Amino acid sequence: MNETNWNRLGDYLKQTQLLGSIQNTLYWDQNTMMPKKGASWRAEQLGYIAKKLHARNTSKEFSILIDAAKEELNSCKDGDAKFFEKKRNIQLLSKDMDRQRKLDPKLVELLAKAKSDGYQNWQQAKLDSQYETFLPFFKDLIKLRIEEAKQISENLSTWETLAQPYEPDISKKWVFKIFNPLKEVIPELLEKSNKYLVKDWDLDKESQHLLCIKLLNEFGRDTDLVASAESPHPFSITLGPSDYRITTRFVKGEPFSSFLATAHEWGHSIYEQNLPTRTHQWFAWPLGQATSMSVHESQSLFWENRIVKSRSFNKRFFEYFAERNVPFNNYLELWRSINAFKAGLNRVEADELTYGLHIVIRTELEIELIEGAMDPKDLPFEWNKRYQDLLGIKPSNDREGCLQDVHWSEGAFGYFPSYLVGHVISAQLTNKMEKDLGTLDNLIEKKDYKIIIKWLKENVHQYGRSLNAMELVRKVTGDEINPDSFINYLKQKIDELM
Amino acid sequence: MNETNWNRLGDYLKQTQLLGSIQNTLYWDQNTMMPKKGASWRAEQLGYIAKKLHARNTSKEFSILIDAAKEELNSCKDGDAKFFEKKRNIQLLSKDMDRQRKLDPKLVELLAKAKSDGYQNWQQAKLDSQYETFLPFFKDLIKLRIEEAKQISENLSTWETLAQPYEPDISKKWVFKIFNPLKEVIPELLEKSNKYLVKDWDLDKESQHLLCIKLLNEFGRDTDLVASAESPHPFSITLGPSDYRITTRFVKGEPFSSFLATAHEWGHSIYEQNLPTRTHQWFAWPLGQATSMSVHESQSLFWENRIVKSRSFNKRFFEYFAERNVPFNNYLELWRSINAFKAGLNRVEADELTYGLHIVIRTELEIELIEGAMDPKDLPFEWNKRYQDLLGIKPSNDREGCLQDVHWSEGAFGYFPSYLVGHVISAQLTNKMEKDLGTLDNLIEKKDYKIIIKWLKENVHQYGRSLNAMELVRKVTGDEINPDSFINYLKQKIDELM
Repeated sequence: MNETNWNRLGDYLKQTQLLGSIQNTLYWDQNTMMPKKGASWRAEQLGYIAKKLHARNTSKEFSILIDAAKEELNSCKDGDAKFFEKKRNIQLLSKDMDRQRKLDPKLVELLAKAKSDGYQNWQQAKLDSQYETFLPFFKDLIKLRIEEAKQISENLSTWETLAQPYEPDISKKWVFKIFNPLKEVIPELLEKSNKYLVKDWDLDKESQHLLCIKLLNEFGRDTDLVASAESPHPFSITLGPSDYRITTRFVKGEPFSSFLATAHEWGHSIYEQNLPTRTHQWFAWPLGQATSMSVHESQSLFWENRIVKSRSFNKRFFEYFAERNVPFNNYLELWRSINAFKAGLNRVEADELTYGLHIVIRTELEIELIEGAMDPKDLPFEWNKRYQDLLGIKPSNDREGCLQDVHWSEGAFGYFPSYLVGHVISAQLTNKMEKDLGTLDNLIEKKDYKIIIKWLKENVHQYGRSLNAMELVRKVTGDEINPDSFINYLKQKIDELM
Repeated sequence: MNETNWNRLGDYLKQTQLLGSIQNTLYWDQNTMMPKKGASWRAEQLGYIAKKLHARNTSKEFSILIDAAKEELNSCKDGDAKFFEKKRNIQLLSKDMDRQRKLDPKLVELLAKAKSDGYQNWQQAKLDSQYETFLPFFKDLIKLRIEEAKQISENLSTWETLAQPYEPDISKKWVFKIFNPLKEVIPELLEKSNKYLVKDWDLDKESQHLLCIKLLNEFGRDTDLVASAESPHPFSITLGPSDYRITTRFVKGEPFSSFLATAHEWGHSIYEQNLPTRTHQWFAWPLGQATSMSVHESQSLFWENRIVKSRSFNKRFFEYFAERNVPFNNYLELWRSINAFKAGLNRVEADELTYGLHIVIRTELEIELIEGAMDPKDLPFEWNKRYQDLLGIKPSNDREGCLQDVHWSEGAFGYFPSYLVGHVISAQLTNKMEKDLGTLDNLIEKKDYKIIIKWLKENVHQYGRSLNAMELVRKVTGDEINPDSFINYLKQKIDELM
């Protein structure tokens, strides 16, 4: 087979990936190292790169390269052992590009501005706890994103269309089939759960930092491959096929926060690290990339909740905590404390049980906002009402309430469900893993993280974008994505903790 | 005046500067944060940017923009208050561009490869202490750079042509007029100097780090403007008009090394910080940039040697050293120790006195190599002979000898003199500063760094590239650049330390 067109497309993608990874490097530096006053020039650098990237991703040249590679591939179907992989790569490239090219450039420009204005005004509105000042920008964003969905017109509802980039093939029906049982069960479980009295304690930053490093060593982090740093919001990012970075943050009064964030970001990172063949060339193709946000979250939540919040992990790590100034007499106290269930107003610091309710509320609200059932001006009222109904608590202001998250301020509708679907997928995958490898508690007790990571690589990570989330879970577990495993896990955990 | 062409040129320069500052960000990250395995993808990112930059700096479009702006400027000479500044900007842009455009693209490509091969093979040759394995690559580099000078053909000697980008208007005659007296005097002074017995001591990394931070605070570093980090080799870099970074390193057995490097890099950085108007637009024009490497070094050497090695500074800082585990009973012991004179083989760790001899040797050798008086294969012999003659010591191998520095491995001929010319300029500027402001010792004792920085800004930094090094020193001191002040300073210091 003459691979000229294929290689030409690969070269084009690689150049795009070089630019994309430069963008990631600027973002990383901005959040870990940049002095404050560098912000405005950095914004110009990022704008410069974003413009170049958009141009590359929607260029006529790119479109011609995709078509030529497709034609070449089809003309020698039988001779190519990697035909199906290649076909899937081409399909995904075409799909991503079509979406971009359907948009009126005028709308793209208006959206970019509305996102930037939205974000800036949200920051101020949050500081002032004044939803009204954000409202006009929010309305504008909603209007433009509805127009975007209309231009893309994918035979899906408006919200579904906007959610596709985060979760390919997501539908409202599918989401609520998963969420509705959880909406029923979680409040019951919360009622029943042991109200472990959370001790009022804290840990100095240096101790927290050392525990985070210890944790990464425990998991087998290769320091030549994965760098770590501190940032205002924890994140994981990939800067090259052999260059991974994770961050954590230290929150006053939340002594477990940096530790749990480290585990969480490690989970994201190890997924990226195990994506198919990390050669420079492959890194640029769709199959070398993560498949969806909910699969990504399933991986981070696994390390945060299934590993670090497990009984055996707390048994292993108790000695390191005990070396520090902690108020626990034994590992069971540590374990209970790190697993304390308590309905709160804040999504990010929420426990495993109530986290899902935060997501259900946001998902319902954003669908109503986008699909016309709710007037944006009623958001604070509706938000507070649903928190009262589902969690039994009510924000005292908009900062604690509907202004708390960044997502909507940039018009990112359809992202939130990933967090809860991630919990659900994590539970299903863990069930299968335990069938294959024995109990997690047993693996952790023996420090068998390599075996866990190998299983995750073979069953999840290595597929990249060759399977969507639904196909992936079906392939691994034989079941559709459904909340049963997650519900069972929560019930069992609550019993254990009693 | 219709400024359309002028602004169009400004926009072009700004885009170039955005790309250039992205390159700097990648370099900064590579040296401070990047995990080792990220190196090969980073090289591809840097190659991508370098190619784009070269294309922008030599494009037909750029050339047309310069010509149009020049024409516009000349057509309204009288109406423009900034005529002379603008004229100088245009001159410098034309000069830089002409140099680039004179080169055969084929040669540019060969040079890029020869530099990369040279650097890589030098690294291995240095590890193995085997000059012979580096020799063929070195010969190739020399040959190509001679060809480069020929294509540029600036009515200067070959070496002089190559040295221009580091030191505009440098000539051999000028350099040796400065260096020859030093070559005579330094060995005599060394003979005479108090051989202060250097104590065999060290300081833990954490203490060194805290002293470095203390030092930056002392100098008035704004943490929102200047970030600091650790890197294998100390450097200072500007990432944006309000984004400065400096690094240091911690060397086992050299307890002052990180401290002195911090002062040195601070000096580079404060020069960059005070360049004319730090708006985004001006940052991109030549006059917003540093004028030459020797002026840059004069600034870093000033803070390292004239401030930190002064008697009064050691008096001020003794208490902070005394809090740590140091073997000094009083500030005079600290001051003598930080000023110990001792002929060594290593340039980077050399004292104020012998440093100049390292530079004289390198400058003479590189001129002979480039202008044909010496066969590259004889370099180790010649190197060792001159160390024996001038410093009275002899390297026991090539790693300690002619392979120690990176510069030649990448074909950077003409860079070395800047270090010694920097010492000389620093002494002349300091003399004038003391005439204007009173003794440095007095200023330091009163912690009057703001006054020192204000003087440097008004007399040196603010001129950017509007004056070359020679013009600058003439303007400030009324004298030509000459070694008298430096020699007097060294004599006086040796007497003081007796």
